[in-house]
Amino acid sequence: MSIRMTSSGLALEGRTAPKQALEFLDTVLRGVGQVMLQNNSYAGLLFLVGIFYNSVLFGAAVLVGAGVSTASAMLLAADRSQVRDGLYGFNGALVAVALLYFLQPGPLTWTCVIFAAAGSSVLMAAMLNLLSVWKIPPLTAPFVFTSLGVFLATARFGRLESTGLLPTAGLPSAIEVQGVVTTSTVIEGLFSGIAQVFFQASAVTGAIFVLGLLVSSRPAGIAAVLGSLAGLLVAWGMGAAEPAIRSGAFGFNSVLTAIALGGVFFALNTTSLAYSALATVATAVVFAAVSAGFEPLGLPAMTLPFVLVVWVFLLAAPLFPRLRPA
Amino acid sequence: MSIRMTSSGLALEGRTAPKQALEFLDTVLRGVGQVMLQNNSYAGLLFLVGIFYNSVLFGAAVLVGAGVSTASAMLLAADRSQVRDGLYGFNGALVAVALLYFLQPGPLTWTCVIFAAAGSSVLMAAMLNLLSVWKIPPLTAPFVFTSLGVFLATARFGRLESTGLLPTAGLPSAIEVQGVVTTSTVIEGLFSGIAQVFFQASAVTGAIFVLGLLVSSRPAGIAAVLGSLAGLLVAWGMGAAEPAIRSGAFGFNSVLTAIALGGVFFALNTTSLAYSALATVATAVVFAAVSAGFEPLGLPAMTLPFVLVVWVFLLAAPLFPRLRPA
Amino acid sequence: MSIRMTSSGLALEGRTAPKQALEFLDTVLRGVGQVMLQNNSYAGLLFLVGIFYNSVLFGAAVLVGAGVSTASAMLLAADRSQVRDGLYGFNGALVAVALLYFLQPGPLTWTCVIFAAAGSSVLMAAMLNLLSVWKIPPLTAPFVFTSLGVFLATARFGRLESTGLLPTAGLPSAIEVQGVVTTSTVIEGLFSGIAQVFFQASAVTGAIFVLGLLVSSRPAGIAAVLGSLAGLLVAWGMGAAEPAIRSGAFGFNSVLTAIALGGVFFALNTTSLAYSALATVATAVVFAAVSAGFEPLGLPAMTLPFVLVVWVFLLAAPLFPRLRPA
Repeated sequence: MSIRMTSSGLALEGRTAPKQALEFLDTVLRGVGQVMLQNNSYAGLLFLVGIFYNSVLFGAAVLVGAGVSTASAMLLAADRSQVRDGLYGFNGALVAVALLYFLQPGPLTWTCVIFAAAGSSVLMAAMLNLLSVWKIPPLTAPFVFTSLGVFLATARFGRLESTGLLPTAGLPSAIEVQGVVTTSTVIEGLFSGIAQVFFQASAVTGAIFVLGLLVSSRPAGIAAVLGSLAGLLVAWGMGAAEPAIRSGAFGFNSVLTAIALGGVFFALNTTSLAYSALATVATAVVFAAVSAGFEPLGLPAMTLPFVLVVWVFLLAAPLFPRLRPA
Repeated sequence: MSIRMTSSGLALEGRTAPKQALEFLDTVLRGVGQVMLQNNSYAGLLFLVGIFYNSVLFGAAVLVGAGVSTASAMLLAADRSQVRDGLYGFNGALVAVALLYFLQPGPLTWTCVIFAAAGSSVLMAAMLNLLSVWKIPPLTAPFVFTSLGVFLATARFGRLESTGLLPTAGLPSAIEVQGVVTTSTVIEGLFSGIAQVFFQASAVTGAIFVLGLLVSSRPAGIAAVLGSLAGLLVAWGMGAAEPAIRSGAFGFNSVLTAIALGGVFFALNTTSLAYSALATVATAVVFAAVSAGFEPLGLPAMTLPFVLVVWVFLLAAPLFPRLRPA
Repeated sequence: MSIRMTSSGLALEGRTAPKQALEFLDTVLRGVGQVMLQNNSYAGLLFLVGIFYNSVLFGAAVLVGAGVSTASAMLLAADRSQVRDGLYGFNGALVAVALLYFLQPGPLTWTCVIFAAAGSSVLMAAMLNLLSVWKIPPLTAPFVFTSLGVFLATARFGRLESTGLLPTAGLPSAIEVQGVVTTSTVIEGLFSGIAQVFFQASAVTGAIFVLGLLVSSRPAGIAAVLGSLAGLLVAWGMGAAEPAIRSGAFGFNSVLTAIALGGVFFALNTTSLAYSALATVATAVVFAAVSAGFEPLGLPAMTLPFVLVVWVFLLAAPLFPRLRPA
């Protein structure tokens, strides 16, 4: 048999056209799964289901973005096994959904999506090379930098129209505590925090994402829920605004940090659990910092806080011998 | 005898509880000393005396910060000799005093101090690993980045209240020359510039710091005074505002650059003296630049100018064969 | 014969004073040529002719800047062959012309020019060391960072007066399409885009620069024209303001990217041409992004977009085996 189902997706041999198409589809789905660090096409499929449930436009964007960035890497003859693992797909998927979230859909925006998704694969290769010195992964940094570039460019390019969802540029200033956090804030924020990884503000989508994670890795699913909860609780305790907590804004970066450190990179032990918990808490504070730091430019933090915190905690790990790689 | 006094502090052998406590105290004092690059607990003690002279709150903060960051590194089993040299103490000490300088004291602020001091040890380990590629030290970068993160987060967290000492966010613009520099400006600025390394605006504290430096290293003490003077003179010559010159704002980064390059990292010769002088002058300009660059975010420059300039001059040194490591 | 003319400039042997002076002049001219990545003193001479045609002040600045930064590197005993290739001259040349373009000429500004040109050589050495890990070149980054530092410092130093050409600090916001692009916009923008590499807004100067490039390398000359055209067309298509397009603002970074990737670093083949074209297009978008990103600080983008894009595309290249170094 040349097509087998494995626990993480399809394994294919031979080079007939339909098999290659099926393999490409499986690769794209792994790319979607890698957004939450899962090299697993079932997880990717469930993430897609969750996105399409909330929005057909965003679902299509994710497919196009992951497809274009994967195809670009193949055209440039990137390492076949890295492509096959979805490593050249997840940044393109996120770039596409981010561009369509913040820019009006239309021919020019879709052209930008295609160029930006291709560009994210070049940036991914650059960062793989850059970070190989320390053996740490680029995570979603290529997506973040590519998207920030396009959003900033809207201030110079009159034909790039924003949807009005980009933060208004302003000077950061101290805030008062706003609104009252209730049980519904917590429940909605908990699941929306997971959905926001893909820019989806829907608790149902978040629940479907958890399902996708559990199919791929039980620790990753548990880490995601705990990470979202931790981000939410830190934000609440520090006096963040209730609408931001409810929307999951303080959750999605902590979700990714918890999955990465609690479920992927370290072998589980007491030290690694405490270390991951510290990182998850830190991520919520760094989200507040990055979000305020981008205010004069009117830019969203996206997943930059997750990237920064996980880089720091991975870089530090070799100096702390009680932490062992998974 | 298992407890000996050496020229840089205590040397202890054996593992009884009182000896361990004494060793920890000596390590914390070395951490305070390392703020000015002195692995010397007598220097650390004198720095503490200078700070307590000006403010009991800040003295306590320095002790707590250095203690927590050192203990965190020990819990994570960091390299024992690096811990013992105070390398995991100085960033925590500075983080603690910075947070209490810019945020209202209270339970939440002290909680943040503890988390941030622990976090600064993780960031220190990360930067030790990152920079080991070029064999350059993290200096006070972990303190700067940790503190900047917390200050930025105050714009999102309603329960973090600032003391009103953080710069007001605004857009940088050209200034006129303000005020007249007199002898009293120069004398006060000279010593306050040294005291400002620990956020202390007191000429007496600055003088006690010089004493602490001289106990540890005569070249370091002389470099500190000359560095403060150089920063002050550059600022004066370029037309900086008199109150800023008097407060020592243009001094403390130049003090640290002068100590690092003139007293610690290079063997003394004509080239290294000219090179250190150029770096000390450059530090005053970079302070002006970083301070203006942070204006839209309402952030203080802290010791970032020192860090940037010393990194550049250390990175360049191997290409200039007349500069030899000390 | 101890003085020979080669295809890239003079080759001199022996150490008599007039020969050393001639060699220094040849080195300075190579430094001017290296601004457009040409180790060729004839190219440097023609660039100088183009600049003097437009402005005697800027021509003198380029000579002083390249001379001071080259001499500083020699005083510090930097690698002789790197100095001889003009690698310590081009950043100084650009720093000098940038400072005189944005700051009022006068004794303090010229003092700053000399210090900044010397400082740019230290920064060049630092970045050569930093980037040697990945075998990528510093390009014009030392110039960009040195100049940004000085411009920012004007907000703190009352005696540094700007010429009013620095962008006004403000918050970036979406723009409407402004003005109509005509044939004269395209022709003027095309050549001004090349002249702007040296801050010259003159189509004639741009044409002389092309001549200088063609003398040194035909592919570089062609790449420069196509790069300027590509930057201009992207800006037009995306709806940039007509005056900015006419001034060549969207051209000069794409010119440099096209020369670097299309004419210097890669062996020519279909993949490298497509790759360089993608980079050249990306450079125009990154110029818009950097220019908007610097708006709150009132800083010009200078050649930072070129530096960032070329670094990314060079870092990525080893992972794409169809791209071969030239």
